Amino acid sequence: MIYLDNSATTYPKPPQVIRAVQQAVKSYGFNPGRGGYRQSLQTARMVYEARETIAAFFHAPSSEAVIFTPGCTQALNTVIKGVLHHGDHVVISSLEHNAVYRPLYQLKEMGEITFDIADVVIGNDEATLSNFRNAINRHTRLILCTHASNVIGYKLPTERLCALAHSYGIMFCLDAAQSAGVFPIDMVNDAYDYVCCPGHKYLYGPMGIGLLLIGNDNRIAPLIAGGTGSMSAQPEMPDFYPDRLEAGTQNIAGILGLKAGVDFVMSHGIERIYQKENRLIEGLYRTLKRHDKLRIIGREDDREGVYAPVLAFTVDGTDSESVAVKLSEQFNIAVRGGLHCAPLAHKALHTIDSGVVRVSPSVFTSADETAYLQRVLSRM
Amino acid sequence: MIYLDNSATTYPKPPQVIRAVQQAVKSYGFNPGRGGYRQSLQTARMVYEARETIAAFFHAPSSEAVIFTPGCTQALNTVIKGVLHHGDHVVISSLEHNAVYRPLYQLKEMGEITFDIADVVIGNDEATLSNFRNAINRHTRLILCTHASNVIGYKLPTERLCALAHSYGIMFCLDAAQSAGVFPIDMVNDAYDYVCCPGHKYLYGPMGIGLLLIGNDNRIAPLIAGGTGSMSAQPEMPDFYPDRLEAGTQNIAGILGLKAGVDFVMSHGIERIYQKENRLIEGLYRTLKRHDKLRIIGREDDREGVYAPVLAFTVDGTDSESVAVKLSEQFNIAVRGGLHCAPLAHKALHTIDSGVVRVSPSVFTSADETAYLQRVLSRM
Repeated sequence: MIYLDNSATTYPKPPQVIRAVQQAVKSYGFNPGRGGYRQSLQTARMVYEARETIAAFFHAPSSEAVIFTPGCTQALNTVIKGVLHHGDHVVISSLEHNAVYRPLYQLKEMGEITFDIADVVIGNDEATLSNFRNAINRHTRLILCTHASNVIGYKLPTERLCALAHSYGIMFCLDAAQSAGVFPIDMVNDAYDYVCCPGHKYLYGPMGIGLLLIGNDNRIAPLIAGGTGSMSAQPEMPDFYPDRLEAGTQNIAGILGLKAGVDFVMSHGIERIYQKENRLIEGLYRTLKRHDKLRIIGREDDREGVYAPVLAFTVDGTDSESVAVKLSEQFNIAVRGGLHCAPLAHKALHTIDSGVVRVSPSVFTSADETAYLQRVLSRM
Repeated sequence: MIYLDNSATTYPKPPQVIRAVQQAVKSYGFNPGRGGYRQSLQTARMVYEARETIAAFFHAPSSEAVIFTPGCTQALNTVIKGVLHHGDHVVISSLEHNAVYRPLYQLKEMGEITFDIADVVIGNDEATLSNFRNAINRHTRLILCTHASNVIGYKLPTERLCALAHSYGIMFCLDAAQSAGVFPIDMVNDAYDYVCCPGHKYLYGPMGIGLLLIGNDNRIAPLIAGGTGSMSAQPEMPDFYPDRLEAGTQNIAGILGLKAGVDFVMSHGIERIYQKENRLIEGLYRTLKRHDKLRIIGREDDREGVYAPVLAFTVDGTDSESVAVKLSEQFNIAVRGGLHCAPLAHKALHTIDSGVVRVSPSVFTSADETAYLQRVLSRM
């Protein structure tokens, strides 16, 4: 199989991640922080080390600012539902995933909040910034947007959007679903208030684990309340992180697997990984854009660093899901057709009816593999 | 090490669970239901088979009624926050865990709901039922209680409490954190509206996975909204289960590990496992209750079937956490002291200051191990 759906989840995982998961289930299967015995304390220590590694990777203010969640979706819901109050207004981009759009829509339907969508102008950051600025009103409390589109890979000017937010006293939350492990994220320098990301994409951890990184502490109201092994006699959740947002038994295998994944990314170097992946996508782009029947979506003539390694296209006369099925059945190539849970992005890109075929390599993808896809597509 | 903290999480896991987790990370690392390629569909099929196995185990109305959650705590929060409306009243027992108490307290502090605590009378189900009946008022919408106390193992008359609830038109939610895999749960016969349980306790799955089983469908408002790979163009969560309550990428390793755990329990037989574990606890109980310095908590002279295999005690003159530390450091025995995230239970049992030492075997615990603990304790 040629696996080119790494934006959905990276596969394969590095051997050290597989080992870490196996070792966690086999040898560190103790509930940490809830027992005074050695093995529980040792597991707690390993979880703490994972927090330290991750805090270092993102330049998070402290390891306590690293909250483990079951995924990016839950991290985003935690921010959206834990930070916003009745009457608040939110600005998001036109490229958001349903993990952002649906929880906001939920709160809007309940009459709790309002939100506006700022158009992303591809290749024109000034225009994008201006659209965000124009969407701000006096009730705006949060700007939340994707770091890079999960459909087309386009990178938003999030550092500048964060600065814009702060200049209005507004908080900024980064959805790093497609960018964590791809583009450097510096919580201190970039001053993001919140960063949400999955563990199983370009951080190479297993599915079922994600992160909420907290830059500026606003004492988020916990979405999930329950046992924390701390302050057990009090009926409120503890007021300190990470306990406040980590009720219930944790996914130890996920956490230790994610730590191994982050170690892997750090040892290979995020820039080097990106360059490798980007070279593959650039190569595909240059060839496929000349193909009569293919239409590359949302990509301008390539400027390095502004696209996560994702290529989206449509094939004239065939819907995107059929193309994906054909590539799988006839050529054993795994790519993803459809809407990628991002109807807003597809509306903005005018592909809401057709969807797109999305190609996304990982560090393990070889040039031979993308060359094969290229040959297959050129005969279509 | 002699591991007797299985009520926190079972250890070790059966070899087939470890294998399933490893295989999931290694060979089924595809995002199911979001791609048209073979490997994604195959992963989706394996997740569906896990639902079917679990539905069969609990006699759930359908495999769609099996919702995967990151744990029992999140399942409970999903019910509590997704079912209750402004002005509703809830009745819980005096033995509840913070996973029940804290989310309810949260909603109460927000002015959304009220709740009352019905005293559990150990050894007198009629009195317990009567206390629940007396706590019901015309706003009561939900009775939620533990199947068996996580502190003392005492089993509540939940089938009768569920019937009581229904006779008043009230819904019933079972917290099966300590009982799933210990006592048979029959969603159809017992008519529970909701059952919440962890995967990593007596279902022998890994940490990080749990279940919400839905008996009677009330279209729970999703606590977490996001991508589902279904109905992607609509801004609302799908109105069908399981998608409605399963936003975001799933914990495939957790799900397949949990399936292997449930298969393990089914193949050994839940009654046989219980009898084995109960025999160990009964043996300990009979000896330790004669010990001058030990005080067994919350256990009457043993009636089979009314206690999950858990034994709680205090040691005169030593707080419970110190006992646990001593047992670990001097004898390499892992038991749990403290409050076990259940302050309500400890208030009811008058152990809120001391906590208790909790001993909990699993199917892998041998009689030699509990005998060793017994000898160590008898010299205390």
